[in-house]
Amino acid sequence: MAQADTAHNAVQAGRRIVVIGGGFGGIEVARELGRAGLAVTLVDRQNHHLFQPLLYQVATSALSAPDVAEPIRRILRPYESVQVLLGDVTGIDLASRTIALDHGASLGFDILVLASGASHGYFGHDEWAQHAPGLKTLADARHVRARTLLAFELAERETDPAEQQRLMTMVVVGGGPTGVELAGSLAELSRYTLARDFRNIRPQSARVMLVEAGPRVLPAFSQAASDFARDRLERLGVEVLTGTAVEDIGEGRITIAGREMPVGVVLWAAGVAASPLARMLGAETDRAGRVLVDETLAVRGLDGVFALGDAARFVDEAGNPLPGLAQVAKQQGRHLGRSLARHLSSGEALRPFHYRGRGNTAIIGRNAAVFEQGRLSLRGRLAWFAWALIHVYLLVGFEHRMLVSMQWLWRYLTYERGARLVTDDTIRPARGVRARD
Amino acid sequence: MAQADTAHNAVQAGRRIVVIGGGFGGIEVARELGRAGLAVTLVDRQNHHLFQPLLYQVATSALSAPDVAEPIRRILRPYESVQVLLGDVTGIDLASRTIALDHGASLGFDILVLASGASHGYFGHDEWAQHAPGLKTLADARHVRARTLLAFELAERETDPAEQQRLMTMVVVGGGPTGVELAGSLAELSRYTLARDFRNIRPQSARVMLVEAGPRVLPAFSQAASDFARDRLERLGVEVLTGTAVEDIGEGRITIAGREMPVGVVLWAAGVAASPLARMLGAETDRAGRVLVDETLAVRGLDGVFALGDAARFVDEAGNPLPGLAQVAKQQGRHLGRSLARHLSSGEALRPFHYRGRGNTAIIGRNAAVFEQGRLSLRGRLAWFAWALIHVYLLVGFEHRMLVSMQWLWRYLTYERGARLVTDDTIRPARGVRARD
Repeated sequence: MAQADTAHNAVQAGRRIVVIGGGFGGIEVARELGRAGLAVTLVDRQNHHLFQPLLYQVATSALSAPDVAEPIRRILRPYESVQVLLGDVTGIDLASRTIALDHGASLGFDILVLASGASHGYFGHDEWAQHAPGLKTLADARHVRARTLLAFELAERETDPAEQQRLMTMVVVGGGPTGVELAGSLAELSRYTLARDFRNIRPQSARVMLVEAGPRVLPAFSQAASDFARDRLERLGVEVLTGTAVEDIGEGRITIAGREMPVGVVLWAAGVAASPLARMLGAETDRAGRVLVDETLAVRGLDGVFALGDAARFVDEAGNPLPGLAQVAKQQGRHLGRSLARHLSSGEALRPFHYRGRGNTAIIGRNAAVFEQGRLSLRGRLAWFAWALIHVYLLVGFEHRMLVSMQWLWRYLTYERGARLVTDDTIRPARGVRARD
Repeated sequence: MAQADTAHNAVQAGRRIVVIGGGFGGIEVARELGRAGLAVTLVDRQNHHLFQPLLYQVATSALSAPDVAEPIRRILRPYESVQVLLGDVTGIDLASRTIALDHGASLGFDILVLASGASHGYFGHDEWAQHAPGLKTLADARHVRARTLLAFELAERETDPAEQQRLMTMVVVGGGPTGVELAGSLAELSRYTLARDFRNIRPQSARVMLVEAGPRVLPAFSQAASDFARDRLERLGVEVLTGTAVEDIGEGRITIAGREMPVGVVLWAAGVAASPLARMLGAETDRAGRVLVDETLAVRGLDGVFALGDAARFVDEAGNPLPGLAQVAKQQGRHLGRSLARHLSSGEALRPFHYRGRGNTAIIGRNAAVFEQGRLSLRGRLAWFAWALIHVYLLVGFEHRMLVSMQWLWRYLTYERGARLVTDDTIRPARGVRARD
């Protein structure tokens, strides 16, 4: 029996498996296939896996970029059958079963796993991107950090009070967890961290606004959690505007609910669109560009092509599409890796995926977080600690866990932030929507 | 007496003191003047003070940028009479006693302290800058890190063995402490850290060369220390070429001693030139562009203008110009700050500066460093620990000290590096020599 399996493995090992994307989903697929000794090539245009749930902390000077990122090669080092390639996928040809990479390179595949994630979506207003950066990559986070800190620096140099006030007006668009976390963190930055560092301005008087088109912040949470988050944000001095749509964004200005106002920084945490690679497959997608997959994560209508995480639209047993969360991608990746490994080594049919919600968290500020799982709901300090523990635990490397937890402890005690840097390479010029992250 | 001093202070407090540069020298001047309650404006084009002696560790993925940098505002926060401005000095007008900043702003002064440091110097070959980046700013360090890591990534994708070998050929130009540290650290990176992470290439077979025009590496150290450094570099696999001048550098190629060779990465650690601001003063400078100062650090021939650190040429009692070391700048800054404070508050004459050498260190790799002070000379593990202790101690913030020492301990035990990141913002296009760092 063991021999038969091995023989089968040897045959199937000839099948070329390519995984596109080294996020939560792609890493897990590659790891599970690698564990089974199957040959896999993982392609990503970044050399690192990014712990996106903590990215807003890089954007608000609390953590440094390497704290929340890990080289993909290092994560997959133990699995010798797994190869990692740095490359930008420029095309997918299903007829010849080849993906095209930058610099004219290409890669053949028998089985393709699309785990290319999502990017910002500007609801058809791509011209807003240059004025309202979003938060998907480390470069994004450093750029947001530089913009925010520069606004205070320029205000310190400014002599016109109106211009000072404009520079210190910051608008976060989108009231989901990222928007809430950014707004809360910006408020804390200005009220505590920067409070005593300037002479001409009072950073405490910075105006931080959170704009949400829907009726409440944190729409994926309960009404009680939304109310709690709003209350805590307002206590931090954040102006929360719900039921309010952004109508236009330009250089130094934003139009909200028919009124144009001068603004120093606009941050985008509203729309998400699946990576354009999803569309390259030519398969059916939803409005956000996510590929429709069946219960085994196979792309509907294509042979040997799978998709997961933010690149896929997976509808659960109750008929609801799964949300774009790290834990969804991670569970899907692990499931698909194991399911594929069994399928290739013993011919077993692919198994259906079932999502197990591990709870939803959002952090508003020091001591203030919400955590909900099913009927369990935590708010306040306990939720904050639960959130911190879970996130430190989920960080990939041991070193990171140790360092991040120490930094948090330090910051918690002092309100200091260790990464208040503006560097020449992060003050990038305005740019368009990114092709893929 | 105290009253008389206070009255004198009040008069002198009207004198506008401007310090250009927030490096080791500028920070100390501002701190001492701030301690005396005198009004000072410190201008820097970066928002952070940089711990330059550890910059090579950012360039070789060992530390993250925020580990070696601290916001200037945060350092000077306790001194309420000190104001920090982010700005690029574009001109100095001694007639109107005004400095011009970017965006059309200007700043009047009665007393000016030039602490603007140094930048790379390419010996009249500014066109080499784009092919051979140097190491003066955090952006430089992240750029060098990205170039180095990308060379391995591209080699992994490459199928032509000759091109693979080219990509994995790295030349460090300049055999001073920075060059030695870079070469040793690159060798360790390829031999240990990356060793098991690739499938198509053997990072251990990367060729690391250190090219020095003079007869030996570490020319500021004893012959024994030079020999030790060379031996340790060679044991790490570094090819050390002394008495060898670089004749040309182009895209993917370098000409050394009449022979052109293909190369993947060239790093510049050879020439240093004082900031161009020194020349703006119109005062006498040496060949490296450093302003000639007298024993009180006053610029010769100018009234109320001082210079220190890498921007100044200070000749000690024995007739030797002081080297461009952090400790020189730091001691000069402290001295000038105190001397000026006394002068302004009680009319006391400015005091002459005396340098006290605290010893010279250079690190070659794990367990291998040299430390020399006068007749004391340490080599090997003890020097490494001395170096590590001194550098951790010198780091400005307590948090940094704690985190950096933990990272070092971790790296020491594992050969891992925590900051192996290539991000889109660090892969900057080729650029010219920087105006000022």
